[in-house]
Amino acid sequence: MSDVAFFGLGQMGMAMAVRLLEAGHRLTVYNRTADKAFLLEAKGALPAASPEQAVTAGGTLITMVSDDRALRALVDDRVLSRLGPDGVHLSMSTVSPETARMLAESHTARAVHYVACPVFGRPEAAAAGKLWLCVAGQASTKDRVRPLLEAMGQGVFDFGTEPAAANIVKLAGNFLIAAAIEAMAEALSLAEKGGVDPKAVHELLAQTLFACPIYQNYGRAIVQGRFSPPGFSLALGAKDVRLVRDTARAEQVPMPLAGLLEDRFLRSLANGRGDLDWTAIALDQREACGMRDPSQPPEAG
Amino acid sequence: MSDVAFFGLGQMGMAMAVRLLEAGHRLTVYNRTADKAFLLEAKGALPAASPEQAVTAGGTLITMVSDDRALRALVDDRVLSRLGPDGVHLSMSTVSPETARMLAESHTARAVHYVACPVFGRPEAAAAGKLWLCVAGQASTKDRVRPLLEAMGQGVFDFGTEPAAANIVKLAGNFLIAAAIEAMAEALSLAEKGGVDPKAVHELLAQTLFACPIYQNYGRAIVQGRFSPPGFSLALGAKDVRLVRDTARAEQVPMPLAGLLEDRFLRSLANGRGDLDWTAIALDQREACGMRDPSQPPEAG
Amino acid sequence: MSDVAFFGLGQMGMAMAVRLLEAGHRLTVYNRTADKAFLLEAKGALPAASPEQAVTAGGTLITMVSDDRALRALVDDRVLSRLGPDGVHLSMSTVSPETARMLAESHTARAVHYVACPVFGRPEAAAAGKLWLCVAGQASTKDRVRPLLEAMGQGVFDFGTEPAAANIVKLAGNFLIAAAIEAMAEALSLAEKGGVDPKAVHELLAQTLFACPIYQNYGRAIVQGRFSPPGFSLALGAKDVRLVRDTARAEQVPMPLAGLLEDRFLRSLANGRGDLDWTAIALDQREACGMRDPSQPPEAG
Amino acid sequence: MSDVAFFGLGQMGMAMAVRLLEAGHRLTVYNRTADKAFLLEAKGALPAASPEQAVTAGGTLITMVSDDRALRALVDDRVLSRLGPDGVHLSMSTVSPETARMLAESHTARAVHYVACPVFGRPEAAAAGKLWLCVAGQASTKDRVRPLLEAMGQGVFDFGTEPAAANIVKLAGNFLIAAAIEAMAEALSLAEKGGVDPKAVHELLAQTLFACPIYQNYGRAIVQGRFSPPGFSLALGAKDVRLVRDTARAEQVPMPLAGLLEDRFLRSLANGRGDLDWTAIALDQREACGMRDPSQPPEAG
Repeated sequence: MSDVAFFGLGQMGMAMAVRLLEAGHRLTVYNRTADKAFLLEAKGALPAASPEQAVTAGGTLITMVSDDRALRALVDDRVLSRLGPDGVHLSMSTVSPETARMLAESHTARAVHYVACPVFGRPEAAAAGKLWLCVAGQASTKDRVRPLLEAMGQGVFDFGTEPAAANIVKLAGNFLIAAAIEAMAEALSLAEKGGVDPKAVHELLAQTLFACPIYQNYGRAIVQGRFSPPGFSLALGAKDVRLVRDTARAEQVPMPLAGLLEDRFLRSLANGRGDLDWTAIALDQREACGMRDPSQPPEAG
Repeated sequence: MSDVAFFGLGQMGMAMAVRLLEAGHRLTVYNRTADKAFLLEAKGALPAASPEQAVTAGGTLITMVSDDRALRALVDDRVLSRLGPDGVHLSMSTVSPETARMLAESHTARAVHYVACPVFGRPEAAAAGKLWLCVAGQASTKDRVRPLLEAMGQGVFDFGTEPAAANIVKLAGNFLIAAAIEAMAEALSLAEKGGVDPKAVHELLAQTLFACPIYQNYGRAIVQGRFSPPGFSLALGAKDVRLVRDTARAEQVPMPLAGLLEDRFLRSLANGRGDLDWTAIALDQREACGMRDPSQPPEAG
Repeated sequence: MSDVAFFGLGQMGMAMAVRLLEAGHRLTVYNRTADKAFLLEAKGALPAASPEQAVTAGGTLITMVSDDRALRALVDDRVLSRLGPDGVHLSMSTVSPETARMLAESHTARAVHYVACPVFGRPEAAAAGKLWLCVAGQASTKDRVRPLLEAMGQGVFDFGTEPAAANIVKLAGNFLIAAAIEAMAEALSLAEKGGVDPKAVHELLAQTLFACPIYQNYGRAIVQGRFSPPGFSLALGAKDVRLVRDTARAEQVPMPLAGLLEDRFLRSLANGRGDLDWTAIALDQREACGMRDPSQPPEAG
Repeated sequence: MSDVAFFGLGQMGMAMAVRLLEAGHRLTVYNRTADKAFLLEAKGALPAASPEQAVTAGGTLITMVSDDRALRALVDDRVLSRLGPDGVHLSMSTVSPETARMLAESHTARAVHYVACPVFGRPEAAAAGKLWLCVAGQASTKDRVRPLLEAMGQGVFDFGTEPAAANIVKLAGNFLIAAAIEAMAEALSLAEKGGVDPKAVHELLAQTLFACPIYQNYGRAIVQGRFSPPGFSLALGAKDVRLVRDTARAEQVPMPLAGLLEDRFLRSLANGRGDLDWTAIALDQREACGMRDPSQPPEAG
């Protein structure tokens, strides 16, 4: 059994695990539904039948799961007592700072080092080792996991010793992305209803003031009305906006734009769009304007 | 008297006029307060005592003034009857599509060609001929003013034959900028109150997902708390958000984020911040969080 | 020809004019579409073919029209010069304070007294002389029109000598009504989706904390899904919310709830609901929740 | 020891307990800080040193505590096993439907009957037995507690057999109250900045369209700027708005007005107003307008 365990083989986790294997790391992998773990066997990974069996004493555990509940459930007492003392948990999921604080504490009690390292980037970036990583935790532990981070990311940003800090940064970043999607959805619907070609508007913006990946890629999805397959699902986006609001509550930070986004996502979920890409909140904006879904053929008549 | 008249020598207009003079164009310049026109005499411009005296029959008029009212007042019947027939009005101010439509009509009645060409960029960009230009109007007229546009901008984006279209694009763009400022103000206050250094958060974002001028420059102003002197005043920003909302009303486009911005700007105006840079809406967000104005020394005690 | 002219025979104006006739006042009536004026002939009114013909020198003019534009167009120079000097214009439409200020000024120039007196109440209340009246203007003029006010209203509230004040009060009141509709729409959808009978919730509220006409009547319309025929159309409600926002802008008063309402009404207009009652913004809230329109039969399936 | 235990002697709980004693019920009372329990000794109550000691097998327990956490902590396994089987828990606190569902389940496991019965009304109403009660639970259990309810309330509204339903109704009601406060705060600031006396505006509204307790009493507090002592604290109001939003999330009900309220309360909390009455969100609206705190003397100068 190798000394790096990897839990969570969703779209992102799978791409990250493959990348680590390609970079020469030996992984024992675990996923709630076992078939995904077996897929990685061909790439040299060792599938584990249970979380406890995947981790080794004093070794490293990487987790990449979908939400706070899944993470808390997965890294339980049995896993921690097998991993510690001196094991490392490199926690890469997008979870709340509150969960990070709680886990950091429970890990310390077992002498396991907890490093938070949420990531920015879609599955393609993960597959190419081009993620952006936000890391926070004890300095010596961050040094220890550095080779793993370098295999996965094109850049590592350090936010100090409190793990929760990295989670706050990740939430702030996802909030900014959701805000940019909302802003583009509103601006492009104004243009379209005002008789201007939204593609031309997007081209101008994406080449000039907003010549950056978020506006270029998400803007293109909006003007093309292409919301499936999802790079990041609307349901997961809704979860992250919720985490932003929860953190804002806890810190007493009014965030009216986050509040507006929460309602936009709720409306989209309530109307069955959870499985589309999160740019599909633009469909709700189109309906708000009385405009047609761009992915549908025009109605006859 | 040259055949290009230039009206409006505010921060932007002045820089644009200088740039045109440097590119070899001969300008007759007019400003409501005459001293600014005389400043340009040294650069080779001919100051005019009144709008009518500045324009020549069949010539070109460029306008760059602060709002709809100023533009409507400046380009009156006397000016138009002197300019037409076959004169051109290159209208570069940020005004409403409604004003553009009204002016296009009144110009046509006098056989004057109306081209809308609002610009993106701050005074420094104008001085360097690095503006981004959004042009709309009759094809032959756009050809006629092309040398002027090329002297002022690093890129020209064409939005067809209806002048109002260019104004809608400009408003959509300014809305996106204001939305990005709001989003950053909220995100950075969350980070700061959550114990994370906002400068480090901004650095990450501006180098990765949001590596584009708006997030880099405006974000820096926010984290540094540097809101004066204004590159673009909060009062003018408020005016543009108002134009966005007015246009959205007219087109029946609900824009909740624009509504939120309108209130943020109103609150800032009502609290005496109209002369700061429009990034200073971030100060209101700091107050919302119970945080100190970053430009003030910490209170003793 | 009698000495009271009445302009504007929409749903409200008609009921008010009938009430005045029944109270013994002699009216000369004018409406843009003449047939309505002839309807009143049977009740003893004198139809006039034009606004000028309806008014008498030094007499009284009552106006009740649908918006600022209609009022400004109707009471033009010809009407004022015929009415003044010492005529009175009792202006009862819901218009902006800005229009009130402008009209007060133009009337003064013609020595016509301008009294603003917008009303609260639906057509049934107008027919019964049960309106609530908000009056503002010169004291002596208010005395002069008092018999007319008493015929139309069950209560007269005086807001001083500046006519615009009464219009601000009317807008504040309509804003509060729209806010109450919005609040009920949200609360009742929460109850319904949470498995609680909205009728029972409304009954509790309307009998206890909110035992007042607005919550009783508008709440009933919402729980019954009965939005047609309109007592007050959604399109007119949208106009009033717009006037609230315009006034708030002019006074630098951020009103986030008014902003939210503006978007709710815009979304409703853009989706073809302008002719329903303004409580029909509740239909948009139902769609937001993914719930069925209560006035439609359940879909088969 | 009597057969009714009463837990929670805050402002509301104390008034309700006194009322029950005056109506002839025998109470054993418990409060986290014991001195309050002793205050009731003079009225005939029996103070208990611990929750377990207060309840009797098969008896009745009434709880009135400040939040979900307090309620969950108080009614633990020891209390339930002593109370059941066939004991009744009459749960009157404002808590989330989620907590109600969880408690109903844990009670059933111990054969204890759980009835939710949150209340509307301030401490004065509680002292006078004039609360409005929203009850939900098993029919036979509701019958059993009816004498207690009749002693405390002037009206009992029944929302069926699912306890959580009553909690949803209570949250919907508190949301409507907070929305009415927000609406009045905005409307009255518009009037005041527009030069109209807010007292006169409030008088009109409270006597006509909004002639009901919420608008009368809360509106008066706003125009008088009287926010202390609190009838219901802003911090508790913030908690209830949070519960509304949490419930709305769980039910996928977008509630933009609730989102706006959440930010208004957060801003007020972050600026140190948690201990004022919840109508004090009007102070934030005044600041938004650049207006002075009405409870402060005008600044010299």
